[in-house]
Amino acid sequence: MAGSPRRTAGRRLQLPLLCLLLQGATAILFAVFVRYNHETDAALWHWHNHSNADNEFYFRYPSFQDVHTMIFVGFGFLMVFLQRYGFSSVGFTFLSAAFALQWSTLVQGFFHSFHRGHIHVGVESLLRVKDAGGSMTIHAFGAYFGLVLSRVLYRPQLEKSKHRQGSVYHSDLFAMIGTIFLWIFWPSFNSAPTTLGDGQHRSALNTYYSLTASTLSTFALSALVGRDGRLDMVHIQNAALAGGVVVGTSAEMMLTPFGALVAGFLAGTVSTLGYKFFTPTLESKLKVQDTCGVHNLHGMPGVLGALLGVLVAGLATHEAYGDGLESVFPLLAKGQRSATSQAMHQLFGLFVTLIFASVGGSLGGLLLRLPFLDAPPDSQCYEDQVYWEVPGEHEDLAQGPLRAEELETQA
Amino acid sequence: MAGSPRRTAGRRLQLPLLCLLLQGATAILFAVFVRYNHETDAALWHWHNHSNADNEFYFRYPSFQDVHTMIFVGFGFLMVFLQRYGFSSVGFTFLSAAFALQWSTLVQGFFHSFHRGHIHVGVESLLRVKDAGGSMTIHAFGAYFGLVLSRVLYRPQLEKSKHRQGSVYHSDLFAMIGTIFLWIFWPSFNSAPTTLGDGQHRSALNTYYSLTASTLSTFALSALVGRDGRLDMVHIQNAALAGGVVVGTSAEMMLTPFGALVAGFLAGTVSTLGYKFFTPTLESKLKVQDTCGVHNLHGMPGVLGALLGVLVAGLATHEAYGDGLESVFPLLAKGQRSATSQAMHQLFGLFVTLIFASVGGSLGGLLLRLPFLDAPPDSQCYEDQVYWEVPGEHEDLAQGPLRAEELETQA
Amino acid sequence: MAGSPRRTAGRRLQLPLLCLLLQGATAILFAVFVRYNHETDAALWHWHNHSNADNEFYFRYPSFQDVHTMIFVGFGFLMVFLQRYGFSSVGFTFLSAAFALQWSTLVQGFFHSFHRGHIHVGVESLLRVKDAGGSMTIHAFGAYFGLVLSRVLYRPQLEKSKHRQGSVYHSDLFAMIGTIFLWIFWPSFNSAPTTLGDGQHRSALNTYYSLTASTLSTFALSALVGRDGRLDMVHIQNAALAGGVVVGTSAEMMLTPFGALVAGFLAGTVSTLGYKFFTPTLESKLKVQDTCGVHNLHGMPGVLGALLGVLVAGLATHEAYGDGLESVFPLLAKGQRSATSQAMHQLFGLFVTLIFASVGGSLGGLLLRLPFLDAPPDSQCYEDQVYWEVPGEHEDLAQGPLRAEELETQA
Repeated sequence: MAGSPRRTAGRRLQLPLLCLLLQGATAILFAVFVRYNHETDAALWHWHNHSNADNEFYFRYPSFQDVHTMIFVGFGFLMVFLQRYGFSSVGFTFLSAAFALQWSTLVQGFFHSFHRGHIHVGVESLLRVKDAGGSMTIHAFGAYFGLVLSRVLYRPQLEKSKHRQGSVYHSDLFAMIGTIFLWIFWPSFNSAPTTLGDGQHRSALNTYYSLTASTLSTFALSALVGRDGRLDMVHIQNAALAGGVVVGTSAEMMLTPFGALVAGFLAGTVSTLGYKFFTPTLESKLKVQDTCGVHNLHGMPGVLGALLGVLVAGLATHEAYGDGLESVFPLLAKGQRSATSQAMHQLFGLFVTLIFASVGGSLGGLLLRLPFLDAPPDSQCYEDQVYWEVPGEHEDLAQGPLRAEELETQA
Repeated sequence: MAGSPRRTAGRRLQLPLLCLLLQGATAILFAVFVRYNHETDAALWHWHNHSNADNEFYFRYPSFQDVHTMIFVGFGFLMVFLQRYGFSSVGFTFLSAAFALQWSTLVQGFFHSFHRGHIHVGVESLLRVKDAGGSMTIHAFGAYFGLVLSRVLYRPQLEKSKHRQGSVYHSDLFAMIGTIFLWIFWPSFNSAPTTLGDGQHRSALNTYYSLTASTLSTFALSALVGRDGRLDMVHIQNAALAGGVVVGTSAEMMLTPFGALVAGFLAGTVSTLGYKFFTPTLESKLKVQDTCGVHNLHGMPGVLGALLGVLVAGLATHEAYGDGLESVFPLLAKGQRSATSQAMHQLFGLFVTLIFASVGGSLGGLLLRLPFLDAPPDSQCYEDQVYWEVPGEHEDLAQGPLRAEELETQA
Repeated sequence: MAGSPRRTAGRRLQLPLLCLLLQGATAILFAVFVRYNHETDAALWHWHNHSNADNEFYFRYPSFQDVHTMIFVGFGFLMVFLQRYGFSSVGFTFLSAAFALQWSTLVQGFFHSFHRGHIHVGVESLLRVKDAGGSMTIHAFGAYFGLVLSRVLYRPQLEKSKHRQGSVYHSDLFAMIGTIFLWIFWPSFNSAPTTLGDGQHRSALNTYYSLTASTLSTFALSALVGRDGRLDMVHIQNAALAGGVVVGTSAEMMLTPFGALVAGFLAGTVSTLGYKFFTPTLESKLKVQDTCGVHNLHGMPGVLGALLGVLVAGLATHEAYGDGLESVFPLLAKGQRSATSQAMHQLFGLFVTLIFASVGGSLGGLLLRLPFLDAPPDSQCYEDQVYWEVPGEHEDLAQGPLRAEELETQA
């Protein structure tokens, strides 16, 4: 199972070299460019005798921690549902998120806080870029980037690993830890980058209502389409969260609580039906292998959310927003753009996002097919032992702790 | 195992219809009645040029998130201790809590924030109603409502499912996730609805001290009454939390740190002894099947907490509370009621609570016995497969999903 | 397996007596000494008509909750990696932390808030003592105290329990819950005791950057030294956290983001190499049995962090800190000490810490060897059944703790 000596040697060096190279590069860029900002630098902060309670830390840190919990705990555990891929799911999410914190300091820093040759950092530097369209630029982009990439990497022989593609009882419970933490902190995620005050308050509230409705519609639809009316854990773990995705663009707008319920309900419905009917077609017809169902949780609800943003923006009036129009739609408030024109811009943004995602995903896929990048064979996908020491494997593979499930699914 | 065709068809429709009906009804009520309040509405908030940092969001949101974590993570995982009922425990808690967020917006809204035909909502609308007696109205009410309901639904043949009523090693560890999150966020739960300032601070502090003492007494008593002096996970998972229940009414009063320790110690003791000696009697003598021991965690500590509230209220003096009396006991502060009279009112409140709980529980039980509501047979209680697709069940039951660990520990 | 009748009787009384004695003693001390402070006492708070929003509760409570989550969830679950010691790991962490909250109120109260015969308490009384050198006084002290204690308690026959010293697949996933919660809340832990404003903000930021770098170096080194290039869960669970330890002393200083990356990277490297090469030597040569690798996570990174504090303190200038020097190094700001002299004091502090840890650990070890304290035999270490009822053990010990599911699924 350990593979050929050449592959083993390659694997021994691949991850270390990648980590060391990336860490070395970011460290040098940090040394040259990154400095504390006026909220974190001892001399700058005390220069003007601020009141310590005014430090932005106290306004941003709680939301910031919620979002971190969501990413590290939520996404980390959500993918532990795979019976033999739990170490990889939680471990590689951990590694990627840690590096992303460094990298986003640099990328966002160059775009947003680059003054006189330096990036100035505080906790808000570690937060996602302000983005009036999370449904588009995060969910729809990420989903279609990944799906196109998966199309390029299509493995016709993947059914050799089919027996490991499902869950076992306790791996599903671990995944529910992920789901629940994502659910409760999604309102923080959607509200964190919005303007302080009513905008942040409204975003959190709309996201909550939308999530409650997607949860109800997911349970309803899952039982309706299930074998003997039984619920499917995959639906509950994922589609119940679609309400958070679908209001990504419009949560800070005057969506109304009723609008949030309707949006969430639709998103949960579309997402559950996607898992049941569309995912199988996606593989058989379009040759896209979507193990986690990102098309159902991020793809379709993301596009739906972008379209909802088009609608709600198109309906924006001075009457509904009052002086608050300035912070939600500044160009409308200044009279430089009509509501309809704002809606058209939003729609155009969606198309641009989908084109960039497709081109980026294709290029990414081709890059990952470079021969010196060592991918596991078709029969060893979804298998922790390729990358991890798994307890029990030394003693006797026949006795290994995961042998059982395998035996069982093969039986 | 799938049951008769008629039952299957009934089950396929029952949950979807219930969800769709409830969601449809709340959505219509939201459309007609629910509006953003002045903290969440763009126009209303900006009408008076508030400072954004004053938005109530920043004072309420952290506690609010703590309480949500407690309910979704804490209660969700606490009941995962049942070896084959984990999906149902975490899944149905998730569904109920999501719907409760919508429903409580309406119910509390009609009573507390109904102006000119509309309910006005912000994050505090999703918080529990202000309640100087959580021990009574939440814990004692909920416990006795449920116990009376369980009496009405008594199943003499439930021992047919006895073999699934216990835990397995890892299901107990999942339950401890629930316990720990309940423990650390219980101070937020008790303090969230109290008055801002010293009241909220004191509630959190008293709850902490009470919880530490109930934890110590639970460990002490569990070892004392255990077989060969061994600790019982059921006690630790539940009775250690009784300290949070017992100060539900009195946490915001001048209970003193010493008083909190004594109250918590007693609650942990009563609760542990209840699990050991009273729960078996409850079933054999009173025909009440209390699988989770709610009588021990919520019933007795809730009544104890209500009585503690009677005592501490009866001892309230102007000297001890100073000008703070106004916010804890407004009627005392205004001279409209004496401390003794306040105590009598608290005691009367307990009796009313218990009567309402008994009547409500009886009616609820009779409702659930309606023939078209399809309950699982006695031999299939505590079994996820009744409601959920469970991994592995298709292939061969003899190979069950947890077979692997067993093989290994035998090696 | 239950042991002799005398041992059983001893065990039945030992834990209860210890809990009751400690709880009794603290309760009496609470009754005599502990009072609400001016932020939690109804009369004192309202005496001066404070604005309720100024109550320290609102500034301290979110960080305080983060630290509690870290201790109860993080440390509780981190040690669940042992396959048959999960109940003990999470249970005894729970018990110890609960008692520590009471005890630290008294100990810190006598030293820090003792006025006119009383200790005055609010939530900050439950926080760790302010400590400009967490790397030293918490991590290095704790680690070497424990290691010396373990040397005194050395068991040459411990290999009799070797088969229980490792993990199983799902116990490793539980441990990752611990790791992730420790990681995300470590910035709160390092920043909680520092001065409000820029100091707290900077501590959190430096800790984040250091943790990201230790995560990258841990993954890199773990694959580099692993069998066939495979990652080791023990490294990821522990060494990835070394970045939090290593900046314990210097996080509030002007370490610079680059400095934080370098420190974290080194700590992750040293810690991973320690697990691979030093831990085996520690047992074979120095007779120290370090099951959890505290030397690698707390010992070496703690000493490294203390030395980093010496370096950064020695480089402190008025120019770099401006008026902020007052809050980080008050004696430097007042001109009573030079930067070099501050560095020497820090270095001296490390030596004192190590000496106290060694002496304390020796005495503690001798105390624990007292004959009436009943330790489990060499063949029953790392075994929950010594202290806990473990599900399934009644039926047949030869079938291990997970017998239950198997019986049932075979039925």
